[in-house]
Amino acid sequence: MSPLLYAVPLIGLTGLVFSFWRFRQIAAMDPGNETMQAIAARIQGGAMAFLKAEYSVMLGFVLVVAGLMYLSGLSSGSHPLVAASFLTGALFSGLAGFFGMRVATLANVRTANAARKSLTEALLVAFGGGSVMGLTVVGLGILGLSSLFLFFLSWFGDSVADMPRVINVLTGFSFGASSVALFARLGGGIYTKAADVGADLVGKVEAGIPEDHPLNPATIADNVGDNVGDVAGMGADLFESYVGAIISAMVLGAAVAAGSTFTSDADPLSPVLLPLLLGGAGVVASVIGSLLVSRDENVDPQKALHRAELISAGIMLLSSLVLISVVLPAGWVSPEGITVDRMGVFTASLIGLGAGLLIGLATEYYTGAGKKPVHDIVLQSVTGPATNVISGMSVGMISTAIPMLVIAFAILGAHSLAGLYGIAIAAVGMLSNTGIQLAVDAYGPIADNAGGIAEMGSLPSEVRERTDRLDAVGNTTAAIGKGFAIGSASLTALALFSAYMTTAQLKTINVAAPNVMCGLFIGAMMPFLFSAMAMRSVGKAAGSMIEEVRRQFREVPVMAQALELYRQNRETPTSDWAPEDRKVLEDAIAAADCDSCIAISTRASLREMILPGLMAVSFPLLVGFVGGGEMLGGLLAGVTVSGVLLAIFQSNAGGAWDNAKKMIESGVEVNGEEIGRGSDAHAAAVVGDTVGDPFKDTSGPSLNILLKLVSVAALVIAPWIAAHGATSDTGLDEEPAQTVMTDTTSAEG
Amino acid sequence: MSPLLYAVPLIGLTGLVFSFWRFRQIAAMDPGNETMQAIAARIQGGAMAFLKAEYSVMLGFVLVVAGLMYLSGLSSGSHPLVAASFLTGALFSGLAGFFGMRVATLANVRTANAARKSLTEALLVAFGGGSVMGLTVVGLGILGLSSLFLFFLSWFGDSVADMPRVINVLTGFSFGASSVALFARLGGGIYTKAADVGADLVGKVEAGIPEDHPLNPATIADNVGDNVGDVAGMGADLFESYVGAIISAMVLGAAVAAGSTFTSDADPLSPVLLPLLLGGAGVVASVIGSLLVSRDENVDPQKALHRAELISAGIMLLSSLVLISVVLPAGWVSPEGITVDRMGVFTASLIGLGAGLLIGLATEYYTGAGKKPVHDIVLQSVTGPATNVISGMSVGMISTAIPMLVIAFAILGAHSLAGLYGIAIAAVGMLSNTGIQLAVDAYGPIADNAGGIAEMGSLPSEVRERTDRLDAVGNTTAAIGKGFAIGSASLTALALFSAYMTTAQLKTINVAAPNVMCGLFIGAMMPFLFSAMAMRSVGKAAGSMIEEVRRQFREVPVMAQALELYRQNRETPTSDWAPEDRKVLEDAIAAADCDSCIAISTRASLREMILPGLMAVSFPLLVGFVGGGEMLGGLLAGVTVSGVLLAIFQSNAGGAWDNAKKMIESGVEVNGEEIGRGSDAHAAAVVGDTVGDPFKDTSGPSLNILLKLVSVAALVIAPWIAAHGATSDTGLDEEPAQTVMTDTTSAEG
Repeated sequence: MSPLLYAVPLIGLTGLVFSFWRFRQIAAMDPGNETMQAIAARIQGGAMAFLKAEYSVMLGFVLVVAGLMYLSGLSSGSHPLVAASFLTGALFSGLAGFFGMRVATLANVRTANAARKSLTEALLVAFGGGSVMGLTVVGLGILGLSSLFLFFLSWFGDSVADMPRVINVLTGFSFGASSVALFARLGGGIYTKAADVGADLVGKVEAGIPEDHPLNPATIADNVGDNVGDVAGMGADLFESYVGAIISAMVLGAAVAAGSTFTSDADPLSPVLLPLLLGGAGVVASVIGSLLVSRDENVDPQKALHRAELISAGIMLLSSLVLISVVLPAGWVSPEGITVDRMGVFTASLIGLGAGLLIGLATEYYTGAGKKPVHDIVLQSVTGPATNVISGMSVGMISTAIPMLVIAFAILGAHSLAGLYGIAIAAVGMLSNTGIQLAVDAYGPIADNAGGIAEMGSLPSEVRERTDRLDAVGNTTAAIGKGFAIGSASLTALALFSAYMTTAQLKTINVAAPNVMCGLFIGAMMPFLFSAMAMRSVGKAAGSMIEEVRRQFREVPVMAQALELYRQNRETPTSDWAPEDRKVLEDAIAAADCDSCIAISTRASLREMILPGLMAVSFPLLVGFVGGGEMLGGLLAGVTVSGVLLAIFQSNAGGAWDNAKKMIESGVEVNGEEIGRGSDAHAAAVVGDTVGDPFKDTSGPSLNILLKLVSVAALVIAPWIAAHGATSDTGLDEEPAQTVMTDTTSAEG
Repeated sequence: MSPLLYAVPLIGLTGLVFSFWRFRQIAAMDPGNETMQAIAARIQGGAMAFLKAEYSVMLGFVLVVAGLMYLSGLSSGSHPLVAASFLTGALFSGLAGFFGMRVATLANVRTANAARKSLTEALLVAFGGGSVMGLTVVGLGILGLSSLFLFFLSWFGDSVADMPRVINVLTGFSFGASSVALFARLGGGIYTKAADVGADLVGKVEAGIPEDHPLNPATIADNVGDNVGDVAGMGADLFESYVGAIISAMVLGAAVAAGSTFTSDADPLSPVLLPLLLGGAGVVASVIGSLLVSRDENVDPQKALHRAELISAGIMLLSSLVLISVVLPAGWVSPEGITVDRMGVFTASLIGLGAGLLIGLATEYYTGAGKKPVHDIVLQSVTGPATNVISGMSVGMISTAIPMLVIAFAILGAHSLAGLYGIAIAAVGMLSNTGIQLAVDAYGPIADNAGGIAEMGSLPSEVRERTDRLDAVGNTTAAIGKGFAIGSASLTALALFSAYMTTAQLKTINVAAPNVMCGLFIGAMMPFLFSAMAMRSVGKAAGSMIEEVRRQFREVPVMAQALELYRQNRETPTSDWAPEDRKVLEDAIAAADCDSCIAISTRASLREMILPGLMAVSFPLLVGFVGGGEMLGGLLAGVTVSGVLLAIFQSNAGGAWDNAKKMIESGVEVNGEEIGRGSDAHAAAVVGDTVGDPFKDTSGPSLNILLKLVSVAALVIAPWIAAHGATSDTGLDEEPAQTVMTDTTSAEG
């Protein structure tokens, strides 16, 4: 066993200590004046209340699944310890979300306060908050995986022959992480869009309350939603991706270790250890990168972040090269018969990085303001909402082409260099920068929230301008981040698929066999059903929110009175109102019951996340146990390919609509006419943007998790399938699927 | 050789003679007064001009492809005669569209005229027109297939060993039919929606011209579009489905003939002949059914059509039972090792029929006015276009679940009873009623057009009421027809897929192999790219139309004058206008240049159909020749599964939006408030309906063809793949895909 392996949990721990140190630094900063603190406290209170409620719902689910896994571990080819792995994964994923939310709700108000002084100060606070989150995610991931791995090595033995069992038990960790991530992304996504759509529509339906006005009791829920969806959801999401990519590379590494003859001396387990070591190096690179964000007042924030990312990526590349050279043997012939040398493995990780970057650039092109596709949507907004929606859908659909081709060729490239292991390493390569990437991603919502606090706390307008500028900086980076998320999700899903086949001892999955085709159809349908459920849930939850707001305005006299005053004096700024009217307004704002709105959004989103979540977990188990291993393989292929397509379509269409609206808001000329806020084209663009909201913030990002969750669920039950024979005993299909065409062909030929 | 086979072309010919006799009958009917005849002549002229232009574009394409096929037939495992098959298929498909359009544009005005007398008279004319089209399609299909088959039998020999080559050459017919169908569906779909959206938007943009007003020069193009899209497009579409299903069953029947030992005496080719014989029986059943539509004045039109369909289905079932019992041996062990008896084959065809019916009923549930999903869309229309669009999308996505499950289980069921051959027979079973089904489908647009002529020709309002009633009758039947179309497309695509593998001598297509996965990703992306292109084309073509209308109002003085008058007197019915104003209006209507609008819509739709059409044909060929047989197999699986999903999603979302709008137009109560035409909810529903237009009439129905076209293209080049080895020689993937996982597993296990 390479002594390097023992360093990995320590590196994970170091990342956590570093992020705790950062957290303390931020907590010690000045949270601003009393109003700001009060607003921040409300947001934090709401966010934490949601998290608490969400975690209690998930606890039930997690315990039931852990119990089932324990029982099935007793009776099948697996081991009861897989339940412990699962619980740890779920716990760590929950912790990643919790810490992320905690620091984000501290950093938002401190960013707003720092923005009173300078842009750079604010940047450092917001990015500091983001980096706490980023390092917590990678730190927890690496710490959890490597310490469980060491523990299982000592429990089951550390020879090559022990690997299948060790790693199967370890996959429980990934399953736990994915399950929690799905609920977090979905619940958070429903919450944030229900609050957002609900708060917006109340203004329209009740005809009078402006957006984001504190008289609207749904406003705080809207701000809570940003944290719940964008911060906690994203944290759990990336935690899951990170862990899934590493685990799948370990499974395929074990296949290499078992099936290949190395051409030079090396630890026989080195292909298994490499992914963990790369993860450890990623933590170090992220810590160094995040320390190097410039404190210089004269540096453009965009450049400051890019520099940190580039430094981190450079360190990562260098250390990958060193680790691969030191740890791996000079080469081997892969289990599939491909001659691999270690430079091939390094190149595969470069292919992953390059593919992620290409997909990110394509995302930026199809969704970026000012680019042709978004400009086309702007043009089509002039003829109304219908043409706006049609052109947005068409942009979303067309934007799937490049990423799908890039993924397809990345698979071929990585495979030709380093076999199936190469595909998994490409996914790890895409995610090696997760720490710093997430820091930059999470910084966006913090800056956004800071802007909201500045607005509600009536800070001077330059503060809002600074936070807006910070917010804008993150956009390109966020598009590229999305590219990496989608690319890595598909490569990881494929790697998990291969890992599933290896573990389930399936030789081939013949897509022409009827049971496999049946699985393919069911699997491909899942993302559609899942998206539909998520969209419908947003609608229902937004409806509950609207009803609650209406109830308050109906039943609380002072609020009804304020609303009436507001309608009468809509043209007059509130500062010019008569003192007694202002008093009524203030009383009404004080009387507005934000907490009940928060409670409603919380309850509705938790209720609504259960059905799609259960579907995601139960379908693969059901198909696997009843339909057999090949049918489950078909399901995996189906869910991967249709999930990736729908995820790209939805998030890009949503992003393009959003930016088309923003372009119109900042004023554009179409056919010689200036269009802007308040124009018919703007109204049309708002429709598109609202349609895109649940696409890009609820169903789209959840799909990334769905496809890995399904794959990892299959991987977890793979030993059962191996033990019970590949095909089902239901009588639906009596011969092994892979032989279906054999006789036909030989008879033909 | 069974003597029954020689009867088949005669039956096909009989169907054609019968439909020609019907055609003459309709042509001899009274076409009404001069105005009606003038309007009808304009519609007919426009439709024929489009067809002529479309066919000249296609001719180039068809000749190039035929040339390539001839050349590749010289050099590969195929035969140059495949080019002749291809040409015949393309020609027959073109003829089916031409005759359909010809009779529809005769029958529309005669239906309007008959409706002046009675409902039953009008029903008989409209249904007569539809049945000419239906019988032409099945007659041409059966005649073409069976006479080519007989010719190739005499050319290549009629032993079991000759079958692969005979049937491979015959697949050229199916490829020709599918190619022409794709262009017809796509070109027609773009034309009709460009004219529809263009004519609608002109009214809004130019603010004043009411919908369907003869002053709007785009109105005639809109009516032409109904014929071009709904009649000619649908005819080519069903011709292609019918031929594809029969061909794929013949290929798999040949595999049965070659690889099985029969348990009783029978013609060794009987499994190959059965699909043709079933097709012949279908023609007879359709002729009888269409003769039995009641002429009784007191019969409800809905019941009259249902009765004809039921009688036809009953005859078909009975004759299937007889043919299967007489022709097939008592049983065999299929090439895949399944014990098949002839009752199993009959049951497989019943499964196909049942699956089609179930999918149809699900379609009716998700898109029917008054049903819960559509009612939900109505409720969501109250809060604006965004929520209307979101809920429509969610209905469309959720509606994929039942059809996908039905298809999945139909595959398993048919396969367990009769092997792969059973899947193909299930598809044939679904389509055996095509003749009468198409008669009922095509009758809808004829009645619709008759209504338009009644309106434009200022016939009494009871005439319009009667045609509206006729139109409404077809709706449920149309929904069920859609179910059959989608169900049969997927089963046929799967059968073609198996046929491809048999012919290409591919043993398995391992979906876990990187090259197959790569193909799967590319294939699954195709329907998204194709849909996006189609939607964008509609937008562009509609834009050209709007510009032309604007130009006319700008440059033709009398039209500008009439428009101005119209704006001033919008509240006054034109009959109350001052005589000199009425004169201006009449002059302007006479001056409106409909022909240039028709020409623009024609040119735009033809230009726009080329790129997506080329993509559909070139992708499978490119992937097959460069990437190899397995990668092409992955592509087929991908395009099938994602094509079926998108087709269901798009056509059901479009249908649901359409009916939600109609429900609001006929008045519904929501939350105690009556909403109807002119309400905000109605405006929101119109947005959804417009978004759904290109979904349900352009991209959705074209996808059905796309997936079969791609499969049949693969089938055509399958001999080349068999001759040149399964895998590519590009060096991307050096080992045969199916062995990729083998060593891994054995090393693991």
